[in-house]
Amino acid sequence: MLKIDRFYDARRELRKVLRQTPLIPAPRFSTYADVYIKPENLQVTGSFKVRGAYYKIATLSDDEKKRGVIACSAGNHAQGVALGSQVNNIPAKIFVPSTAPISKVEATKRYGAEVVLIDGIYDDAYAAACAEVERTGAVFVHPFDDDDVIAGQGTIGLEILEDMSSAEAVVVPIGGGGLASGIAMAVKTLNPHCKVYGVQAAGAPSMATSYHAGIITPSSSVKTFADGIAVKKPGELTYKYCSEYLDDIVTVSDDEIATAIVMLMEGQKLIAEGAGATALAAVHFNKLPIQGKKVVALLSGGNIDVTILSRVIHRGLVTSGRSSELNIELLDRPGELTRVSTIISGLGANVVSVNHTRGNVHNDINACFLQIAMETRDFEHFNEIRAALEKAGYSVN
Amino acid sequence: MLKIDRFYDARRELRKVLRQTPLIPAPRFSTYADVYIKPENLQVTGSFKVRGAYYKIATLSDDEKKRGVIACSAGNHAQGVALGSQVNNIPAKIFVPSTAPISKVEATKRYGAEVVLIDGIYDDAYAAACAEVERTGAVFVHPFDDDDVIAGQGTIGLEILEDMSSAEAVVVPIGGGGLASGIAMAVKTLNPHCKVYGVQAAGAPSMATSYHAGIITPSSSVKTFADGIAVKKPGELTYKYCSEYLDDIVTVSDDEIATAIVMLMEGQKLIAEGAGATALAAVHFNKLPIQGKKVVALLSGGNIDVTILSRVIHRGLVTSGRSSELNIELLDRPGELTRVSTIISGLGANVVSVNHTRGNVHNDINACFLQIAMETRDFEHFNEIRAALEKAGYSVN
Repeated sequence: MLKIDRFYDARRELRKVLRQTPLIPAPRFSTYADVYIKPENLQVTGSFKVRGAYYKIATLSDDEKKRGVIACSAGNHAQGVALGSQVNNIPAKIFVPSTAPISKVEATKRYGAEVVLIDGIYDDAYAAACAEVERTGAVFVHPFDDDDVIAGQGTIGLEILEDMSSAEAVVVPIGGGGLASGIAMAVKTLNPHCKVYGVQAAGAPSMATSYHAGIITPSSSVKTFADGIAVKKPGELTYKYCSEYLDDIVTVSDDEIATAIVMLMEGQKLIAEGAGATALAAVHFNKLPIQGKKVVALLSGGNIDVTILSRVIHRGLVTSGRSSELNIELLDRPGELTRVSTIISGLGANVVSVNHTRGNVHNDINACFLQIAMETRDFEHFNEIRAALEKAGYSVN
Repeated sequence: MLKIDRFYDARRELRKVLRQTPLIPAPRFSTYADVYIKPENLQVTGSFKVRGAYYKIATLSDDEKKRGVIACSAGNHAQGVALGSQVNNIPAKIFVPSTAPISKVEATKRYGAEVVLIDGIYDDAYAAACAEVERTGAVFVHPFDDDDVIAGQGTIGLEILEDMSSAEAVVVPIGGGGLASGIAMAVKTLNPHCKVYGVQAAGAPSMATSYHAGIITPSSSVKTFADGIAVKKPGELTYKYCSEYLDDIVTVSDDEIATAIVMLMEGQKLIAEGAGATALAAVHFNKLPIQGKKVVALLSGGNIDVTILSRVIHRGLVTSGRSSELNIELLDRPGELTRVSTIISGLGANVVSVNHTRGNVHNDINACFLQIAMETRDFEHFNEIRAALEKAGYSVN
């Protein structure tokens, strides 16, 4: 039975490796509440996962340590287990689906773990890890459904209330539910008046569905770019704890997550991975009853491939009206490009690319098309430009 | 005459607005030294500049405060002055060149300052600001050549030595030299054995040139994407202090800065602007005699447009061999695209885009060209793919 003293024990063990992450004011997210970020992307290994993995490994008996540990993960848990094993000087074998991003695999290897790439997805790697546990007797470190792991993640709850005892709500991402279980139990034990909310990706809502249905309800499939929380089924333990301690669970779309990632970059200078930005997305898109409250949102991790980040930035700019495209039909005569670009630059937009093509078979023989990609301030700015062009007689699609 | 007690006075004043930035271990930058980052990108306004600007404003007499302040800046200094004026409830007018990025202008307005956009570059805005000072008698807040501003920036030096008294070297970016002057004076006063190094962009090296020549030597032009340190001429005061207190000044190229920005994103989950990443670029590219030492590198700011960041990421990936392009000549017959893409995917590269075009007038009538953009692990990986294609009979450029 998990009790609060285990959280303090975890904290003591974790002192050896953990970085103390501060609470950072988040003015850009504070339009209707007083929001602070707990930036676990700045944690060693780039995510909170090291807390649970390290504590689990630290609590193993000498005999268990000798047998080594096995884990299965495509990401942050793998790095946590690898670091925990390295510090405790025990062998670790991590089963990773071959679809995992190169950067996360490299990071795991850097901590000295043996990485076994398994063809297929997470479930295939999980099966291979279980077979290896069976064969060798090594200890399996579950990514979330384990009391020691949950106690490790819960140390975040202790830190939040110590740094800000006046916090009225804490918002945390949910994948399998280990993090949310730990934080909710810690916070509710120390201050039952502080609300704790969970946030899932709309494309991977199994804990939210289960929470509201009152019974574990797996998702038949998951679809979100927030790979860190793309979990099909809650754990037995985590479902129990989340049901008991959380005040509510809401979901956010991938576009909302992408917007939050861009806002975190611009407003807070912090890199978040998809899973890491969900709590802030829920705050920004007003999904929770926290108006006027003092709120701590957990930024749980920052391990995102920069190539994916590039795509997210683009997407975030498009959905906030800051990157936009115009298709303008114009007559094929001299000076049209000049006229159009004068209107656009006069309104303060920055032209990024221009594609000028002759019309196709369906159009007037004199027609040609101008495709202009611009940097704009917001949708209003875009509409202003569009209206000015239409007023000048251009047909804009 | 600037003395250390002014730094402590600045610190006391700054308590009202400043965020305490921690020292963060930087394993990815610690291949030959023990490197820590002082992340002033997490400072309020996104850069250290608020320290000097705020302190300058706080020291004004009541009469001066009544007259208000004027500043001229395209970036971080503007936000610092705007915040300082807002908190002290005095009017601020900031002259900004019309070429300044939209995001920095918006941020300055958000702090309540009046922004006057001036057609042209920094020098035009500076001239307009001076004329306004003449006309109104308001106080001009210089971005660097001012003892109070220097004392404000120098509070960073106090914090670094308090948090890590064992630091053996501190590395700081230089534009006009206010930051470097303040930090160097603070550090050398408290611990003369600790080295302090300055870093400039190779395209804007006026302080480095002046330092080594022994006389103020302006650059005839500046060319770097690190806009925060694109300064043509050191200040009189800052030149004097930098000459006296710094152990050396080195330069880094824009490509080196871009690489450091990408490393900071991936390894530290922190957004740096060009100027902000110069110290870490100098550390990573081994420009300083700090082997085996305990080093604090200042990440001075993170106010970079995300659109520029996208380009920087791309550039950083290209210069590290992780984003690459192949131009392949092939015969215009069925199956060629399949054959080529099979070779590439078999070696683990990820194809991002494909452009398939018929030959131009100079080529064989049957030739066509395949332009393939890929994500690769590094240059070695790229060369492996190239060799495999050549071995299969393709001509690769």
